Amino acid sequence: MKTVNIGLLGFGTVGAGVVDGLRRNGNLIAARLGVRPVIYRIADLDTTRDRGVPVEKGVLVSDAAGVIDDPNTQVVVELIGGTGAARACILSALKQGKPVVTANKALLAEHGAEIFGAANASGTDIYFGASVGGGIPIIRALREGLAGNRIERILGILNGTCNYILTRMEADGLPFEAALAEAQDKGYAEADPGLDIDGHDTAHKAAILASLAHGMIVPLDAVRVEGIRGLAKLDIRYAADLGYRIKLLAVVKRAGGALDVRVHPALVPLHHVLASVSGVFNAVMVRGDLAGDTLYYGRGAGREPTASTVIGDVVDIVRNLVSASPGRVPVVTTGPAEVVRDFSTRYYLRMTLSDRPRVLAQAADVLGRHGISIASAIQKEGPDDGFVPVVMLTHEADETACAAALREIDAMDVVGAPTVRLRIEG
Amino acid sequence: MKTVNIGLLGFGTVGAGVVDGLRRNGNLIAARLGVRPVIYRIADLDTTRDRGVPVEKGVLVSDAAGVIDDPNTQVVVELIGGTGAARACILSALKQGKPVVTANKALLAEHGAEIFGAANASGTDIYFGASVGGGIPIIRALREGLAGNRIERILGILNGTCNYILTRMEADGLPFEAALAEAQDKGYAEADPGLDIDGHDTAHKAAILASLAHGMIVPLDAVRVEGIRGLAKLDIRYAADLGYRIKLLAVVKRAGGALDVRVHPALVPLHHVLASVSGVFNAVMVRGDLAGDTLYYGRGAGREPTASTVIGDVVDIVRNLVSASPGRVPVVTTGPAEVVRDFSTRYYLRMTLSDRPRVLAQAADVLGRHGISIASAIQKEGPDDGFVPVVMLTHEADETACAAALREIDAMDVVGAPTVRLRIEG
Repeated sequence: MKTVNIGLLGFGTVGAGVVDGLRRNGNLIAARLGVRPVIYRIADLDTTRDRGVPVEKGVLVSDAAGVIDDPNTQVVVELIGGTGAARACILSALKQGKPVVTANKALLAEHGAEIFGAANASGTDIYFGASVGGGIPIIRALREGLAGNRIERILGILNGTCNYILTRMEADGLPFEAALAEAQDKGYAEADPGLDIDGHDTAHKAAILASLAHGMIVPLDAVRVEGIRGLAKLDIRYAADLGYRIKLLAVVKRAGGALDVRVHPALVPLHHVLASVSGVFNAVMVRGDLAGDTLYYGRGAGREPTASTVIGDVVDIVRNLVSASPGRVPVVTTGPAEVVRDFSTRYYLRMTLSDRPRVLAQAADVLGRHGISIASAIQKEGPDDGFVPVVMLTHEADETACAAALREIDAMDVVGAPTVRLRIEG
Repeated sequence: MKTVNIGLLGFGTVGAGVVDGLRRNGNLIAARLGVRPVIYRIADLDTTRDRGVPVEKGVLVSDAAGVIDDPNTQVVVELIGGTGAARACILSALKQGKPVVTANKALLAEHGAEIFGAANASGTDIYFGASVGGGIPIIRALREGLAGNRIERILGILNGTCNYILTRMEADGLPFEAALAEAQDKGYAEADPGLDIDGHDTAHKAAILASLAHGMIVPLDAVRVEGIRGLAKLDIRYAADLGYRIKLLAVVKRAGGALDVRVHPALVPLHHVLASVSGVFNAVMVRGDLAGDTLYYGRGAGREPTASTVIGDVVDIVRNLVSASPGRVPVVTTGPAEVVRDFSTRYYLRMTLSDRPRVLAQAADVLGRHGISIASAIQKEGPDDGFVPVVMLTHEADETACAAALREIDAMDVVGAPTVRLRIEG
């Protein structure tokens, strides 16, 4: 049987998973494909550490450029990560007309235009299924399965660390810090968890999904990002009382010719499928004008799920090599997207109001003057400090109007603490 | 821009949806694809009825063979349905080397070996995404996204009519007949609902998924099929009390070198994602050895969701035509699958036992002698007729052992009615 030579760059957790997966399922993949993808070279600065998978002598080397340039390397799999060496490696491979598979979300979110441009210029393939959603074939669904649809909306739970923390906070009543510490203990969160809990990892993925869905490069700095750091147990409990569950969501919506792309915690109705996504699982709900809502769910990270998607991309590229059809599914973009600064949604507001007559009416009056109408309001019991928590759910309102109203409300002397504002989606 | 000519066979609901979708999103699709798929001819016996979509003069004709044979027809889309004319049309197109898109699950389930063989023999494409799951790109996920995985298990809710009936029975306490009548009123169920509620439609889809996942043709008559006809409200309520929801499931598991393929109502734990799939929605959960569990959810039927997937397949075929790579993703099968007759699962048993001492122990003794151990048992209050309902959940046991035990139990004179037996999955 014919073989196709893979040059693997980066021999970390996922790299070892790819080597192991190709070994374990090699015969199965070869039967499906008619050719056998083989690990020809692996480049990693560390050529001595045991990764727990057998590697033949001479395969593991330290020189990535040598692997890329080697005429026997037919496919380059980039699993180095980051935006430095990885970028140079990918661009070099693409310029040589060698197809590339990558899982590098930061690189694509920050340098997508350059990378996609290089692939298109040389008529070569770049596949990046594992950059979003780990083992979930969501990139493929957007690029291919839903190709007949205008994409109206994407809602994604795209960070397993955050979803794990939120699940533990809701299901077991842990405070944020304890849930985070537990996620770190279990290896779900990094020692420096900022990339996850401050929403930046989700923002990278949101930018990639938005770019693909709409054929326009979404500049990362145009994405509004709020994470879950410091989210109060109290709000998770009040949300549950009202029939909602809080999730860190990536939101992508069409807004005329522009896009509404944002990442923030949001209340999702309990009966919504996204609310049933718990623990480290990820899910993406895509609304197409023809397909309606479709949802894709699975493990968003981890050695084997990520390797599954990387290998799926390798299979695709090998098919393109075999059938001499490189560049079969190009990433088509018409340039940078305009991302709106304002948007409209429903809000959950928790105000801390003085426990005196007419205070609630005062706050409601401010909202009303900013065009925000209240769908429901509940005064909760509070600590005996003269203030009570008041929770309001609003009808749809503009983000800027809501921010202005809250600035005004929080400046009132009957307000004991800044108002907590969460959006409602789904 | 270059065009690709589609010959559409069958101008019913989905056919009109395809014509409308290609018209509405034509520019978008052309931008993504670089060429424009156009409806060149439509063949339907009824050339006069208004389908609510504009069709240019001369496009709609009555002669399907003429459309297939027309040298200008480049892609054939078969939406006639059934296993008669549709089969002849597809085989004729494939023999001429013309790629085919079909949504015809019955045809593929019954004549898959012949159809796939004809496609492979002429090196042509057959795409059939819409045969399972309507707007959900599950076929694509199995054929491509998960190509690196050994598929361990598939659990599918694949019939929207049944899921609607079950949702209405549970959520609103309707009896089966009333829920069915309502589904018929709403157009979700046919006047003759047998294909849906007796599980045959789901069995067609299960056979297709199993064949794709395992590269072996699954003979339809080897699939064990039980539907939801006559399912008692009582069991839905008892299941809910125990923390389960009843769904009509397609189950595909590996069983050594053979396959375990079956369709039946099953109790699914309430916290399982499949339990949150309600109404006419479909979902498929696939367990790959690398990806772990991934789930695909969406509208399993209807004009536009089905058209979405048909158009997605057309886009794929057009890419293959443009890049001269027909047969890029062949359906590879090694022959017919062996389907096991026995399997092992957990059971929900509702016995109707005489309200006298020691009767429960007698029944438990029979189960024990057949190697079936009881995980929990609850005696419910019953009508005042001397019999009480006793609900048992068993540990995993063999299907044949369970059947033998129930034959013995139901023959005891302390048993007032045949025992209801449902499987537990997930």
